[in-house]
Amino acid sequence: MAGTWATFGVDLHLELAGHRVRAGLERALRDAVRSGRLTAGARLPSSRALAGDLGVARNTVAGAYSQLVAEGWLTAAPGSSTRVADHAAAATATVPFAAATDVDRPRYDLRAGYPDLSSFPRSSWLTAMRRALASAPYGALGYSGPQGRPELRNALAGYLARARGVIANADRTVVCTGFTQGLSLVCQVLRSRGATTLAIEACGHHNHRAIAVANGLHLRLLPVDDLGAATSELGDAGAVLLTPAHQFPLGVALGPRRRAQAVEWARATAGIVIEDDYDGEFRYDRQPVGAMQALAPEHVIYAGTVSKSLAPGVRIGWLVLPAHLVADVAAAKDKADRQSGALDQLALAELIASGAYDRHVRRARLSYRRRRDRLVSALEQQAPEVRARGIAAGLHALLELPSGQDEDELVARAAHHGLAIEGLGHYGPTGGHRPALVVGYATPPEHAFSGALARLCTVLSDPVRAEL
Amino acid sequence: MAGTWATFGVDLHLELAGHRVRAGLERALRDAVRSGRLTAGARLPSSRALAGDLGVARNTVAGAYSQLVAEGWLTAAPGSSTRVADHAAAATATVPFAAATDVDRPRYDLRAGYPDLSSFPRSSWLTAMRRALASAPYGALGYSGPQGRPELRNALAGYLARARGVIANADRTVVCTGFTQGLSLVCQVLRSRGATTLAIEACGHHNHRAIAVANGLHLRLLPVDDLGAATSELGDAGAVLLTPAHQFPLGVALGPRRRAQAVEWARATAGIVIEDDYDGEFRYDRQPVGAMQALAPEHVIYAGTVSKSLAPGVRIGWLVLPAHLVADVAAAKDKADRQSGALDQLALAELIASGAYDRHVRRARLSYRRRRDRLVSALEQQAPEVRARGIAAGLHALLELPSGQDEDELVARAAHHGLAIEGLGHYGPTGGHRPALVVGYATPPEHAFSGALARLCTVLSDPVRAEL
Repeated sequence: MAGTWATFGVDLHLELAGHRVRAGLERALRDAVRSGRLTAGARLPSSRALAGDLGVARNTVAGAYSQLVAEGWLTAAPGSSTRVADHAAAATATVPFAAATDVDRPRYDLRAGYPDLSSFPRSSWLTAMRRALASAPYGALGYSGPQGRPELRNALAGYLARARGVIANADRTVVCTGFTQGLSLVCQVLRSRGATTLAIEACGHHNHRAIAVANGLHLRLLPVDDLGAATSELGDAGAVLLTPAHQFPLGVALGPRRRAQAVEWARATAGIVIEDDYDGEFRYDRQPVGAMQALAPEHVIYAGTVSKSLAPGVRIGWLVLPAHLVADVAAAKDKADRQSGALDQLALAELIASGAYDRHVRRARLSYRRRRDRLVSALEQQAPEVRARGIAAGLHALLELPSGQDEDELVARAAHHGLAIEGLGHYGPTGGHRPALVVGYATPPEHAFSGALARLCTVLSDPVRAEL
Repeated sequence: MAGTWATFGVDLHLELAGHRVRAGLERALRDAVRSGRLTAGARLPSSRALAGDLGVARNTVAGAYSQLVAEGWLTAAPGSSTRVADHAAAATATVPFAAATDVDRPRYDLRAGYPDLSSFPRSSWLTAMRRALASAPYGALGYSGPQGRPELRNALAGYLARARGVIANADRTVVCTGFTQGLSLVCQVLRSRGATTLAIEACGHHNHRAIAVANGLHLRLLPVDDLGAATSELGDAGAVLLTPAHQFPLGVALGPRRRAQAVEWARATAGIVIEDDYDGEFRYDRQPVGAMQALAPEHVIYAGTVSKSLAPGVRIGWLVLPAHLVADVAAAKDKADRQSGALDQLALAELIASGAYDRHVRRARLSYRRRRDRLVSALEQQAPEVRARGIAAGLHALLELPSGQDEDELVARAAHHGLAIEGLGHYGPTGGHRPALVVGYATPPEHAFSGALARLCTVLSDPVRAEL
């Protein structure tokens, strides 16, 4: 006979003490619906009956029912029983609670483009978020304009000036969702101003080229050699995307003459230089190479992110813009998503202002430098004919292979050993550069670095045996 | 006589101790160029001469020079002097540091579109963030795909099913940066599939129209009456954007026949319905109007955000998509910004899973309902000829004005009283709807609501006197 709780045969596991009875009852009922123990349309006992069964006040049960009606788990019409809602049950059918698995990653990963995610400063971030939430005015949680929170733009301007030599101020800064969005917004603005061609390093990230093309620009590929991109070939391009501090993936710094050449080209043609300073914080053997933007802040867009310094999943990037581009880029950002998330921006501002960001970067720099040194010395010992290049900075090295070794073959052999790694050819035309592997030595978590390095050496030192 | 440092008259403020000499020298030289004390082409003393002047090792000076050459501040050609680079001097034009002020807001604000930002659940958010950071695998801080974190998509699928009756699952869900980005991505995909026209409610948000136009779609304006948008006029549009639960700004629910009509149109023409469920959580006098999406999940895109339930600055939105659109929308998201920020997503997933999100929404619903009741009763007493419409749900009401009163005049008078409010005409052609004000009663913080309401009543009850 329906009408008493026992009929449902559901073990509620109630905590019956104090004010938790109601919360416990609500949770138990939600779980029962979610798990399918209470099915669509099932009639619940009256609040009086259930209260009697459980030995609790009737109001407690009535309150729990009305909360669950409000949440859509149950339905109640005047004069009829409380029932399990139809769509509540549907929810259980369609949603097998997927295991929160991440994109499949190989056991050992030396692909470039990642910092060590296991070293993300979780407790510093939480502290920064706590402080930000304690002090932010409530208006900070509303729309505060497409350029981003002023707290963050101010903190960034100060940081970029001292750490990277950028001529920055908050008014010139636009916070965006990683470099991807920043580049996309800039391409939109350039296109709308009549640019048709973006010059770009021939060897580099495919997705940067795809973004330019998706936004209506043609590409002009610039050859890259030991002095960086051939800035003599800019010609009538409307803009150029460069990685001056540490060419990706070759690892060289753009030579002083080429910097000057790019700036002169920009002045003469009203062209725009986009400086992708993706790993500018990480320089090991000498002073950082300052940002090129400082040479000509009215012609160079400086772009950076926390993707290498903290983690790419944070998705915070920034553009420091020539004055004449600020309004257009802000308008493009407004149309794209109005602004980036305020909470992360406030937390990052606090992290920078408190010095915790600098401390984290310094720690990470030491750690990556140690890894680089281990990589170099392991290669010297186990694969002396392999030459490591581009190692003065950044999170990756270029390993030039001795003649007779083939990139694709090595990459395949590495995969066979559970090691993911990429060949230089993966990044586009190399202009006759000798075969090489691009090694992201920051990528593995600390505990996996030794294993990854050992596998790399095995593959490099005896490719034929490695295959067996 | 050039050639010694004294000639330049530059006070270097050097820290002369230990290894800082070189860094101090570099900084001083950069500052001297930046500030214009050293001008383009100026010849620097030889490293030997300057080292002698400063009493430091010649190598220290030579090292500093070569670093600054590398950074582009100086130039040096073999056999000639080191000089200040031409473009370096131009960098000096700087801009003053902006103050961290928020977008100016009036003293009393009853404009629609905001929740009460002062009630954002800061401590619950922080707790959720703490738990998320304690449990997230490190891979969650990397790139985890354009659809967004699986934890959040799972939590949303469950929540939307029970709270809004949406047929949802994680695989169909794309997390985006607010409704603005969601709509933009959908418009891009529709356009790329050949759609040319988006039907849209004639009276609604201007920026939604602007997004569609910016993405290459023409608009077809649908008249709106007491049963919602005229879905009989969809014709050959490729898609339609509707606010079925609570038309913005009229506040009516889309009638059952019109819902059916829209769905039939979508089935017959392969058209797409975009359901903007912007305030679906807030229903006061009866059961929530379930999402239209459940009628035809393969033809309706369900769109929601936390902008009304938490705060717009959080910038988290979601799309629940027909299966045939998921890959294209995900690809558009990937190109726009790869994915939304992982930390906020993890925190929101935790907030929903723990029940704290429901508790907050319930508290907010009670609070807004009380405000609505106060608004209605204040109007009854002080401006009985004004009629409040669309008050069964949402965060705003439509106040229909008695004949003879003019929207723009009232809005101007309100501004005179420090009260920001908008007329219905602000939202586009009203199709002969009588003059009205759109009142966002959730917008003020709790302490300012009484003052805002009093000013509103003053303006409405005696517009002529209010002007004095």
